[in-house]
Amino acid sequence: MGLAVYLVADPGQTQRDLVDDVDAALCGGVTAVQLRAKHLNDRELFGLAMRIRGLTANREALFFVNDRLDIALATGADGVHLGVDDLPLISARTTAPPDFFIGYSPETDEQAAIAHANGADYLGVGPIFGTTSKADAGDAIGLEALARRVNFAGIPVIGIGGIEVSNSASVIEAGAVGVAVVSAILRTPDPEIAAKQLAELVHAALNRALHPA
Amino acid sequence: MGLAVYLVADPGQTQRDLVDDVDAALCGGVTAVQLRAKHLNDRELFGLAMRIRGLTANREALFFVNDRLDIALATGADGVHLGVDDLPLISARTTAPPDFFIGYSPETDEQAAIAHANGADYLGVGPIFGTTSKADAGDAIGLEALARRVNFAGIPVIGIGGIEVSNSASVIEAGAVGVAVVSAILRTPDPEIAAKQLAELVHAALNRALHPA
Repeated sequence: MGLAVYLVADPGQTQRDLVDDVDAALCGGVTAVQLRAKHLNDRELFGLAMRIRGLTANREALFFVNDRLDIALATGADGVHLGVDDLPLISARTTAPPDFFIGYSPETDEQAAIAHANGADYLGVGPIFGTTSKADAGDAIGLEALARRVNFAGIPVIGIGGIEVSNSASVIEAGAVGVAVVSAILRTPDPEIAAKQLAELVHAALNRALHPA
Repeated sequence: MGLAVYLVADPGQTQRDLVDDVDAALCGGVTAVQLRAKHLNDRELFGLAMRIRGLTANREALFFVNDRLDIALATGADGVHLGVDDLPLISARTTAPPDFFIGYSPETDEQAAIAHANGADYLGVGPIFGTTSKADAGDAIGLEALARRVNFAGIPVIGIGGIEVSNSASVIEAGAVGVAVVSAILRTPDPEIAAKQLAELVHAALNRALHPA
């Protein structure tokens, strides 16, 4: 599914133009982009989503919209990413076409365990480490909780929350198929180089996981 | 289409439980309900929409969700109501099933004239009179502008904004097929009686328009 290097693109987290950052990050090797923009009106969100959708399509990367199934469907996104305060998973599943991806962020082991039955295709689990990019992210759950939820989930899991180049391999080693980052790409001087470093480490860790020595 | 007596149900505009008010208003003769709740999270909005959807279905009234095509589709609403800052009409039209109603609130004569070509099934035009129920509603446009937009639109138009029992007939006489109200029902001591009075006057005015003396 191409979830290995997953950029959460939040216009509030960059000093530059978000679309330029996404373009650079895709050049660097980002494989999936989620647009998370909670402070735009719907028309602005739609416009931004259409622009990012164009970029991801050119690079054969996945595109997700946070929270908003309607914006995701209307822009031809590959999927939507939902949390526990959003449209219920099962309602999103019955509303969206079968080949439309639904990501979900569980907040407990139990939510992770039942997400697939309710229609989730992958999970975003975290915050793995401490994060400053999301005010309501809660306390860090750590790598052991990640590994536990990977086992419960039975579907691909990506880790999110405080993931940087330096700790990215540990997230894959705990069983995630990818890492989701915000500041590790958007708050660096060169998003392309940051994405490239992250992609190299993540792909190397995934290869080691697939082919243990 | 049953747009004659159209309640915009906004939880911020009643001191009571909104669902109780909607139930009473439907008993009184409201023919359509639009849920407009901009300050709930999506899970809460979904829950409220499901409850109102149940009531409208029982009464064979129409149910619309303001702004949110995804919540409308997921709750089995009859349609969505969009404004100029929302998901573009044409994108909503291509995303939703053909038999799903799309209402639109144009802000200019030109927007009223092109709305049908872009996929709108009906228009909400206003504010006809001054209103205190919607902070960003703008200045009153009056009955002449309503009549003009009715002619431009070529699709059913309902008037909105400052409509009360006392002025409701004038809105129908200007060419609208219905009146949308908030405070005329929600900010009265008895929503059922208020809806009944409004419904009687609106249906009488519609009958006079259909069968001029």
